[in-house]
Amino acid sequence: MLSDTIAAIATAVGEGGIAVIRISGPEAVTEVEALFCSKTPLSQVPSHTVHYGHIIDPHNREKVEEVLVTVMRAPRSFTTEDVVEISTHGGVVAVKRVMDLLLLQNIRLAEPGEFTKRAFLNGRIDLSQAEGVIDLIRSKSDKAFSVALKQVDGQLSQNIRRLRNVLVETLAHIEVNIDYPEHDVESFTSELIKDKSSQVMAEIDRLLHTAEQGKILREGLTTAIVGRPNVGKSSLMNTLAHGERAIVTDIPGTTRDVIEEYVTINNIPLKLLDTAGIRETMDVVERIGVERSKTAFSEADLLLVVINANEPLHEDEMALLEQIRGRQAIVIMNKMDLPAQVDRDLLLRYVPEELIVPMSVKENEGADRLEQAISNLFFSGKLESADMTYVSNVRHIALLKKARQSLVDAYEAADQFVPIDMIQIDVRLAWEHLGEIVGDTAHDALIDQIFSQFCLGK
Amino acid sequence: MLSDTIAAIATAVGEGGIAVIRISGPEAVTEVEALFCSKTPLSQVPSHTVHYGHIIDPHNREKVEEVLVTVMRAPRSFTTEDVVEISTHGGVVAVKRVMDLLLLQNIRLAEPGEFTKRAFLNGRIDLSQAEGVIDLIRSKSDKAFSVALKQVDGQLSQNIRRLRNVLVETLAHIEVNIDYPEHDVESFTSELIKDKSSQVMAEIDRLLHTAEQGKILREGLTTAIVGRPNVGKSSLMNTLAHGERAIVTDIPGTTRDVIEEYVTINNIPLKLLDTAGIRETMDVVERIGVERSKTAFSEADLLLVVINANEPLHEDEMALLEQIRGRQAIVIMNKMDLPAQVDRDLLLRYVPEELIVPMSVKENEGADRLEQAISNLFFSGKLESADMTYVSNVRHIALLKKARQSLVDAYEAADQFVPIDMIQIDVRLAWEHLGEIVGDTAHDALIDQIFSQFCLGK
Repeated sequence: MLSDTIAAIATAVGEGGIAVIRISGPEAVTEVEALFCSKTPLSQVPSHTVHYGHIIDPHNREKVEEVLVTVMRAPRSFTTEDVVEISTHGGVVAVKRVMDLLLLQNIRLAEPGEFTKRAFLNGRIDLSQAEGVIDLIRSKSDKAFSVALKQVDGQLSQNIRRLRNVLVETLAHIEVNIDYPEHDVESFTSELIKDKSSQVMAEIDRLLHTAEQGKILREGLTTAIVGRPNVGKSSLMNTLAHGERAIVTDIPGTTRDVIEEYVTINNIPLKLLDTAGIRETMDVVERIGVERSKTAFSEADLLLVVINANEPLHEDEMALLEQIRGRQAIVIMNKMDLPAQVDRDLLLRYVPEELIVPMSVKENEGADRLEQAISNLFFSGKLESADMTYVSNVRHIALLKKARQSLVDAYEAADQFVPIDMIQIDVRLAWEHLGEIVGDTAHDALIDQIFSQFCLGK
Repeated sequence: MLSDTIAAIATAVGEGGIAVIRISGPEAVTEVEALFCSKTPLSQVPSHTVHYGHIIDPHNREKVEEVLVTVMRAPRSFTTEDVVEISTHGGVVAVKRVMDLLLLQNIRLAEPGEFTKRAFLNGRIDLSQAEGVIDLIRSKSDKAFSVALKQVDGQLSQNIRRLRNVLVETLAHIEVNIDYPEHDVESFTSELIKDKSSQVMAEIDRLLHTAEQGKILREGLTTAIVGRPNVGKSSLMNTLAHGERAIVTDIPGTTRDVIEEYVTINNIPLKLLDTAGIRETMDVVERIGVERSKTAFSEADLLLVVINANEPLHEDEMALLEQIRGRQAIVIMNKMDLPAQVDRDLLLRYVPEELIVPMSVKENEGADRLEQAISNLFFSGKLESADMTYVSNVRHIALLKKARQSLVDAYEAADQFVPIDMIQIDVRLAWEHLGEIVGDTAHDALIDQIFSQFCLGK
């Protein structure tokens, strides 16, 4: 299956200065050479070198495109196979012309994610690293990117492999006990199983502890800004969005629609829900019947309730505060630059002190307090240090939980002197669940499903 | 001005496997080296080589991105300066992170077209070649791309330079005549001017002859499909669009909206007007009051009038045929698979035989005849051969016409024995107009204006 040569457009499609086509497989160099006119034949150039020339249509010898061709020979490439990258002019037609010719050669169009899949199947990266590659491309914030880059770098994999080694040693010990019971004392093996299970469980707990935060960092904290008309909701959104928005509009061709819902507070990505709704009408009460606002309100992980500190609490606001009981919500007392009119004691009947943040969005005051309040709510005060490994992928979280459960079972069985060969099954299960994270014990259907989420050309 | 180092994202922005940042200028290698962690320092690697490594934030030593870095040293690069290309993961965040760090170095964000402008200012390409680069990126059809690629390759430039050489020799001869009248016979010089002007005029005429076709190939022939309800307009459009549409949807991320209006018939790109209108309602008569349809009808270079051959000519159709008099229009007698009911003689009162094309869109018959009719109308029967140089840029066309007028003036003046130093002015003007095409005599404001049309990163 890996004996064929594949090609795909590797860059985003649209107007740009250049576009890149990636080709990988045993015939990559010779098949491109057949179309490429340059000073030195491609098959004779050293690895990791770049060459200027023209792609020529072999049927009529016409120049099809002016290109730079890069050769990276196996195994020092993304896929560990021979890889050729053709850099063409930007736009739709240039890549199309070159791709058409490539696909007439002994090259087929790559499936989505197939380059990364080859990197995985050829053993250069494991499954969790491959999943990190998707996360890198999809990431919407700096912090999410950092988390994904560590995963690509293999930090999670190293943790998982260490735990699997502990379990393999334990399994080896169990094997010896089963095969040569005369060499071992069963109670000693039970103690060992309890000891090692506890150790691995503690490590898994430590990883799972990062999971909620990791998931937030990866996907953003879905946040709804709610409040009466004219309390300052859209100004707050603009303030929050300021940094990230500026970034986005720096890049031509990025439409605001795509990522304008993402803002970053103190490295915590917020995914603002129904921002269009907030922009078009300020009145969440008026729009209480509007389906979209209702959905945003009920789906949000975090509710930012904005009230006007310069006015007494309105009955609509009391109704709103009633609705947020039991939700993760922060109340923003806006317009603190004006004399406070709101009844603080009344407010405290609905929300504890630490979740009330005085701000003046207009005067740009209190944003730091809001950041702190969000950090307190979701990260117990602070984000973990930069070199933290976060578990952020739901698949990984589910497998860690399964592995943990198998170890709990093993521990309890060992504690109750269940026969060792029964306990062995649980330990092996834990080992397999962890293996599925890095792909050592993953089955083909799962692997296909994971790589099908990739974009073309990766 | 060219002593600074510039950077920009060179690929289209969006979800893709990889993105590329291009850096050009004297500090390109050393400034990237300061951020790049790899086996060999970048300043020591040979030109045209690719290196794997990480971009590191120099302030906290954190890994910012996993990249491939390509070094192309002056003068063998796009700009003829030292060029570094950084290939990052796709998506918005990866390039943003790396760009942010680059711009903290001694590097500034490139203006749109600044890389190509440097290639021009450094003498690697001339102005018409640079303009070809924009056309390449913007081209919507294969043929338009071919035309632009020839321009980038310098075919037009070579033609223009040859003509300018003829004029320079003539000017030299005139100078001798003015400075040393005793060495020359004025009437001989007049003959020479007439001879050379005619020669260059003939060449300019040959180039201008390609201009209408070149412009169509570059921009597409704006085409409106009109007719009564249910005559088969949308089926015709789908038939025409078939080839090109399939191409477009091959490429993920290309939204149909962007280029679905472009279809190609026998290598002639048609830009279909108001296709949305055709799709949403089939009835141009019904919508005669609709502004958009009116505009499409009046703006089109080509009208395709569809009638149902299976019915007698309707009075609305006669009104429509009345309106197309004096326009470039082709009447498609559709549904020829059914018995013909239309009165052919009546039809011939409105349109000549050769502009009536019998078709059956449903049975996919007659498309070849339509192609031929369009070719006849705009290309006198056939497209020029593949190695033709087309003039397609309106700026070039205008300058060719100006140069031609100056030569007409020179010819007539010489014919009437106007003093040689007066004629000299016209010959020089012709030489300057041609020089403006390739940029030899273009002023800074024009150059700035041309490059400002480029996208960022080119």
